Parts: sequence; structure tokens; C-alpha cells
Amino acid sequence: MTKLDSIERLSLNQITTDRWSLKEAAEGCVRAGIGWIAPWRHKVAEAGLAESRRIIQDTGLRVSSLCRGGMFPAETAGERQAKLDDNRRAVEEAAELGADVLVLVCGPSSNKDIALARQYVQEGIEKLIPFAREHGVRLAIEPLHPMYAAERSVIVTLEQANTLAERFSPQDVGVVVDVFHVWWDPNLYREIERAGSRILGFHVSDWIVPTPDMLMGRGMMGDGVIEIRKIRHAVEAAGYQGPIEVEIFNRQIWDMQGDEALALTKSRYLEHV
Amino acid sequence: MTKLDSIERLSLNQITTDRWSLKEAAEGCVRAGIGWIAPWRHKVAEAGLAESRRIIQDTGLRVSSLCRGGMFPAETAGERQAKLDDNRRAVEEAAELGADVLVLVCGPSSNKDIALARQYVQEGIEKLIPFAREHGVRLAIEPLHPMYAAERSVIVTLEQANTLAERFSPQDVGVVVDVFHVWWDPNLYREIERAGSRILGFHVSDWIVPTPDMLMGRGMMGDGVIEIRKIRHAVEAAGYQGPIEVEIFNRQIWDMQGDEALALTKSRYLEHV
Repeated sequence: MTKLDSIERLSLNQITTDRWSLKEAAEGCVRAGIGWIAPWRHKVAEAGLAESRRIIQDTGLRVSSLCRGGMFPAETAGERQAKLDDNRRAVEEAAELGADVLVLVCGPSSNKDIALARQYVQEGIEKLIPFAREHGVRLAIEPLHPMYAAERSVIVTLEQANTLAERFSPQDVGVVVDVFHVWWDPNLYREIERAGSRILGFHVSDWIVPTPDMLMGRGMMGDGVIEIRKIRHAVEAAGYQGPIEVEIFNRQIWDMQGDEALALTKSRYLEHV
Repeated sequence: MTKLDSIERLSLNQITTDRWSLKEAAEGCVRAGIGWIAPWRHKVAEAGLAESRRIIQDTGLRVSSLCRGGMFPAETAGERQAKLDDNRRAVEEAAELGADVLVLVCGPSSNKDIALARQYVQEGIEKLIPFAREHGVRLAIEPLHPMYAAERSVIVTLEQANTLAERFSPQDVGVVVDVFHVWWDPNLYREIERAGSRILGFHVSDWIVPTPDMLMGRGMMGDGVIEIRKIRHAVEAAGYQGPIEVEIFNRQIWDMQGDEALALTKSRYLEHV
């Protein structure tokens, strides 16, 4: 399996350099020769949307996705409506920033009824589509690792994300393949092939052994057990040639000086992705 | 959905009272009116196999399963043979203790090649079957939660366990349904139905939110988000009417006085299973 020969497709998912503001992250990318960024909404809110847009324009970066919409399930119709309203704002922000993909972390159940929560996710996406289409933003369902089923997402496998996405037009809804969330799945390669042109994003990091923490235990590529390159080849064989986001929640990496974290990211990307 | 009206099927998986020796656990069960126990091999080793057998016989308990065989993958043929030898000893111990089910925690990969590790699991089970059959012990593949894929088991979904089990006779190989490991799975109810008469064990605990720890974060039934009763009904509809093991790795429960832990186990079992 061949390595990547440049960092042309590398995108900095902003959570990897969590200490940096959007401006610092964007300028860091420029210094590092990284051409893509994936901002998080709370960082955009800190800078303000108009200023965030200026930062993106001034640095000339392309935006691979906005993180994130979703979190659809809630106990009452009123709460679900409030969440839909927030998703509409997320769509507007994505459009304003020039992101044509909004990542959806679909949300946990508000009670024990996980089947009902999954229904709410489907309804939420359905209601969001017309607004997203008007804004030229595609919705990308990101299946999360099943260990997050109770707290972050009731959508936990690529098969499930594909089945959900296929209820809608590929112009409107696709999926994100994040190696950390899906590497363990016996059906992974079948489902990557099935996703095909619906793959709207590819995220990389690694699974460290022993795993230090459920949330903060992601590793830099090469530090863990995931067959990252094999998964990249499968994603490319399915037709995806877009940006590759490096998205790492890890205290040690967060504590690094930002430019050092980017230098490490680039070398590990070329070596292991 | 109806509650259970007695603790007749309740089995103490010995890890729930980790501080107790096998003798203490068995005597605790007798005091609590619990008729089943599932010993762990390291506790059996501590007491000695002959003495363990005497403890089981003297207390009149029935053994729902022995925990555990498995851990098949290894780098070299010699290491895999050593693991097979250990599995044969586990079968002998199960037979000696009157357990007709040996639970298999299938093991992690020894390197990044998870597909190869899954092949080793299949080969290991295939080689173990004749010996297990001679001893009247059935092998029960327990799919573990995907968060354990790198450290404990490359078999991570009930679908995968069913597909593996179906390569062999139902007289030889079945599956264990443990709610903690499978509750998140979108295909759960389909796969429970598919497992049917191959279900050789049913384990209960709960998934606490927020989850305090990947290994030690299991909760007592009722303390978390799992629809335990719904899953029990599905397992029973599939044909399983055997013992229900309470298996909880949790520091707070381990720190309780053993009789108190059993009293709590019984009341939560009747209330939530």
C-alpha cells in the first residue's frame, strides 16, 4: 500500500490544537504549509462569525468541514425544535465559512429508549435537509464509537449511518469515516464500499493500547493499532479523494506547543496515513 | 414487560464479589438463597481444582459457566499452541466443576492485523471443539464491547459471534449475550433472534452515565441506561431459559461487604432484569 506523497489533502481538525484560537490555528496551518482546516463551532463563536470568515479568507485556507451539528434527540418536541434551530445556525455558519460539509454527531438518547432516539435523529436530519440544501451544505453523518452511545451518538456503526443516509439523496446526506470510531468493525470494508460517493469526510488518529481514557485517549497516527493506510485505501477505492482531517483529543498533544504539534502531525501523516 | 418473580435463575458471576474466594462466594450464595455460580479460573486455581469441586458439591450450587477460555491469537504457531493447551485445561476444569459451558473471551490481536487475529480465533475454536465435546463442555463465544477490541477480544458484535458460531454445530459452539457488551448495537434484536438455541448464557449489569472507566465502570442493574428487561425478553423469545449471570466490574461494588452486595444484586435483579 502506497504512502501519500504530499500533505496536499491534510486538514487540521481544530480540536487537535485545542489551545489555539481559530486565528492561531489558521496562521499555524499557513506556517506549516497545511491548506485545509476544519473549525469547531465554539471556536468560531469565540472569534465571531464575521471575523472567522475573514480569518479563513485572509489565510486562504479551504474549510474541509464544520464541526459540528447534530445532537437531535430530546425529551420534548420543544427541545427537539430548539436543537433543530441550532442545527440551522450551524448550517448558516458552515455556508458563511465556505464549508460545504457539516459534520453531524447525532446525539445520545435522553432516556433508555435508544430506538426512539434513533427515530428522532432521522426526523431531525429530514427536517434539516431543505435548509441545508438552500445553503449548499451537505450533511455528513459521523458514526461514533459504540462507547459513546450513551453520551454522544446513538449512531454507532458505518452500516447504520449508511442505512440512514440512504433514506435521502446523496446530494443532501453522506457519511464521515473516522478511523478511531470504526476500525474495530467486522463490516468496515463492506460498508466503506457501500458508502461510495456518500463519503464526505475521512478522519484519522489512532487507538492507543492500553487506552488511557475514553474521550482523551486518542493517539497520533502511528502510536496505536489502527490499520490507517488500509482504511484510507478502501476509502479512496470507494471514490473519496477529498481532504483528510487529523482529529485528535489527547491531553499530551494539546499540551504541546502548536507548531510542534503540526510538525508531528505532518510527519506522522506522511508515514502512517 | 413482566418482571421475574423469583431469583431462581440468578447466577453470581464471581467477579461481582471479587474480594471473595470461591469458598466465600459459594457460601455467600447459599446464605443469600442464590442457586447458581459462575467461577473464574484464577479463583479456582487459588483454591485448587479438587477443593473447588468439593466446594461446589458441598454447597449444592449449580455452575452456570466457567470464566473463561479464549485469548486465541498470538504471533507464533508455538504461542498459539500454548494458548490452545491452556484452553484444554479450561475445558477440563469446566468439566470437573460440572459446568457445561466454557465462556470464550476470544482475545486481542498481537499486531495490527485484526483480520488475521479473527482467523486465529476461528482456528483456535475449531481445534478446541473435539476436546470440549469429549468433556461434555460447550464453547460460548462472548462478543465483547468494541472498546475492548484492542485489548481483550477481536470478536465485538453478536452478528460476528453468530457468524463464527454457525461454522460449527450448535451442540459444540454457541454465544453469550452480555447486555453491557451489546446494548448499543443497532442489529441487536435481529441477532438475538438469529442466535436462537445457540444462546448459552445471558449476563446482566448496566452502563453508567457518565461512564467512569472503561473496565471498572460497569454498574449495578438499574444504575444505567441499558434496557435490560427488553433484552431479557428478546433472549427468552429466542429460546433461552437458563441462568442469568450478574457480572459487574465495579470498584464500589467490590468494596462493599459481600453479603450486602448480594442483597443489592438480588433486589436489583428482581426490579430491573
